[in-house]
Amino acid sequence: MQRYFAKETINDEYSLPKEMYKHAIKVMRMSEGDEFELVDNNQSVFLMELVLVENNTATARKVKEITKNVELPIDVTIACGISKGDKAEFIVQKATEMGVKKIIFFNGDYSVAKWDEKRQKKKIERLSKVAQSASEQSHRNFIPEVEYASKLSSIDFSKYDTKLVAYEESAKQGEKSTLYQILNGKIENMIAIFGPEGGISPNEIQMLLQKDCKLAGLGPRIMRAETAPLYLLSSISFAKELS
Amino acid sequence: MQRYFAKETINDEYSLPKEMYKHAIKVMRMSEGDEFELVDNNQSVFLMELVLVENNTATARKVKEITKNVELPIDVTIACGISKGDKAEFIVQKATEMGVKKIIFFNGDYSVAKWDEKRQKKKIERLSKVAQSASEQSHRNFIPEVEYASKLSSIDFSKYDTKLVAYEESAKQGEKSTLYQILNGKIENMIAIFGPEGGISPNEIQMLLQKDCKLAGLGPRIMRAETAPLYLLSSISFAKELS
Repeated sequence: MQRYFAKETINDEYSLPKEMYKHAIKVMRMSEGDEFELVDNNQSVFLMELVLVENNTATARKVKEITKNVELPIDVTIACGISKGDKAEFIVQKATEMGVKKIIFFNGDYSVAKWDEKRQKKKIERLSKVAQSASEQSHRNFIPEVEYASKLSSIDFSKYDTKLVAYEESAKQGEKSTLYQILNGKIENMIAIFGPEGGISPNEIQMLLQKDCKLAGLGPRIMRAETAPLYLLSSISFAKELS
Repeated sequence: MQRYFAKETINDEYSLPKEMYKHAIKVMRMSEGDEFELVDNNQSVFLMELVLVENNTATARKVKEITKNVELPIDVTIACGISKGDKAEFIVQKATEMGVKKIIFFNGDYSVAKWDEKRQKKKIERLSKVAQSASEQSHRNFIPEVEYASKLSSIDFSKYDTKLVAYEESAKQGEKSTLYQILNGKIENMIAIFGPEGGISPNEIQMLLQKDCKLAGLGPRIMRAETAPLYLLSSISFAKELS
């Protein structure tokens, strides 16, 4: 069933805002009597029924609350070095499907492509829309936030209880216990750092170690910059959601 | 370091075939003294040094054998329903990075796009090249095979000791123990079936159950057809390669 996100708290009746109207009525061709799911600003989800569609407006009525929650049991932020092409969109879409809470894109020392202040605003706006649409598709209760950091060291690492760096050199040296041990422990919120295509610079690694980040290998194969976050998020789900 | 795959057994000297020559000398601009890695038809890997480059030919010499093996400890085949667009390329590239052994694309009952006999040949050729290039990039010892099945029931399921279906209905009903239990057991070779965008039909499910396939949920979120195989492969690596 189609799911949408509302910016406000939902009362018994809800008037569809312009973009939602356009998608529901014009694209999905919904009409009176059709149902959809609506997530409000408190992450509550309601089954809604369209009761009136006329003159470019549509009104829906609350049928019942849906209590199912599909959010990961831990809050996961991924920080990804900016890479070339449409890799950022790919990461946002797939990481959202896999339950990420926040995605930060940073200009890495070794980033081939960088975003300046002007460019980043448009990029983040576009990526936030990708996150919203992927959240609707994967029936999330929450739209992941997408943020920009002009450099890795400007991220506030202090608010995370678990900090991990996916480090290719660790993987090459056969490091294979850090992620396993971390995921077998208690975590509330985690940040995981992934370099751009060119990797993470020695200066960045030193800074991350000073911030108590742990270097981890994600298996023995070399993964592309945009693939590694998906490995991590899948592993977190496997370790924490299946049993 | 650049890695290539040879079709033959490597003697002390190796003359680069046309495509490898083009990539190594023209694209990567390698010259005499430069080194690369070469995997032979027995999955042995050698460090090679270019000793002679002249007149559109290049010869390399064996420096030493590289014994590192990055293959998954179990053979995993994924069978994916044919989906629209370039999703097949995406699946082949990412699943190769994540260690898959074989990928079968099948026309599902609910496939919106289907490949006929004529089209499939070109598709499989193209996808095999994607697999080769991703294997080079991720330093695999093996290029995954890419195959076509005109329908799901024409796949030979008898040769796998573990058979799993990623089934959205199972996920919706909160099924969360099958994959965990399977990966905690002993596996030599596994096949996992993923539906196309439209899902797996009741007839297909019935056939799969008769073949002893187990229905498994891959976490509570709805993933796109091309994302679910990556969840599975990451989980296998996490469960079997990390500790």
